[in-house]
Amino acid sequence: MKVEFFYEFASTYSYPAAMRVGRLAEAAGVDVLWRPFLLGPIFGAQGWNDSPFNIYPVKGQYMWRDMARICKADGLILKEPVRFPQNGLKAARLALLGSDEGWGASFTRAAYLANFAEQEDISDDRVLAAILKALSLDPAATIARANTPEHKARLKTQTEEAIARGVFGAPSFFVGDELFWGNDRLEDALEWARR
Amino acid sequence: MKVEFFYEFASTYSYPAAMRVGRLAEAAGVDVLWRPFLLGPIFGAQGWNDSPFNIYPVKGQYMWRDMARICKADGLILKEPVRFPQNGLKAARLALLGSDEGWGASFTRAAYLANFAEQEDISDDRVLAAILKALSLDPAATIARANTPEHKARLKTQTEEAIARGVFGAPSFFVGDELFWGNDRLEDALEWARR
Repeated sequence: MKVEFFYEFASTYSYPAAMRVGRLAEAAGVDVLWRPFLLGPIFGAQGWNDSPFNIYPVKGQYMWRDMARICKADGLILKEPVRFPQNGLKAARLALLGSDEGWGASFTRAAYLANFAEQEDISDDRVLAAILKALSLDPAATIARANTPEHKARLKTQTEEAIARGVFGAPSFFVGDELFWGNDRLEDALEWARR
Repeated sequence: MKVEFFYEFASTYSYPAAMRVGRLAEAAGVDVLWRPFLLGPIFGAQGWNDSPFNIYPVKGQYMWRDMARICKADGLILKEPVRFPQNGLKAARLALLGSDEGWGASFTRAAYLANFAEQEDISDDRVLAAILKALSLDPAATIARANTPEHKARLKTQTEEAIARGVFGAPSFFVGDELFWGNDRLEDALEWARR
């Protein structure tokens, strides 16, 4: 039994999802496949060149209030990121590498905390290097592996796969072909995986 | 303790919300204020002249699948409405009248069932008349009361109030000034009301 967790580092609701998916899935006896991807190409195809939460400010205002309630209930710090939406490209490449090498979940949680709790700039190599170092990885060598043309292409492929499978936002969960969208659908996805 | 329930008859997720809000609120000891309104002016102001689920088909496809799962879990029949989005103007005027006169909740549930479970055309006076008759109301007299200029203006005012308070979709719940958007936030709204 497994659930595929598609997430984007700029996505607000992906933050509480990333912080709890491992714990809840473990309790449910379900494996998690950590699958970072990019929302930019998806939003671009819908004619948006910014987060819909910025394009529709009333919806954005609600989202931040909703996030505050969710994070409070989950015991998570929430501080306005240094920019929104953040550029999560470098973090996504590293997370994908980490997903291959066994440190993807830890890196992902640390990068979400840096962006949404610590007001660090996760598009800055120095911030990413500090996260990698805390995971006992060699920052320069790891960043170099994440920046090879082959690896860059893999993140592109992962995003294209998400689009082909009907992903239109983040976080998204797949159990086989069954899609669940949103942090608030995580429990449903895990229940589906256990059927 | 009370929760204001803002709903639009064309809105898919308002259907399961309308079918369970009375029951859940009663169990929580919370009163429900049934507040029909129109999404059209809100979507229009965002530049949409159709449901976002039609404008963004991938999102629409997911929504119908998600609705199928929700309705199955709630024991509700779900059949594709005769048109989507349905024109809920007449039903909303009647529901608002019913909200004043004490039959708003029953009318609302019957109209949602007609639209989403029975493939009836709720923009048709005959369908609405049959619902009113089943509630032991005089259909012609009731429809006439709902169609006075004063009453039409009241629905417009209610929609304007929703916009002014930050409503951008349906269903929406208010506990005082605290806004909760979506059928999946009903439990949170009731918990907030009980604090």
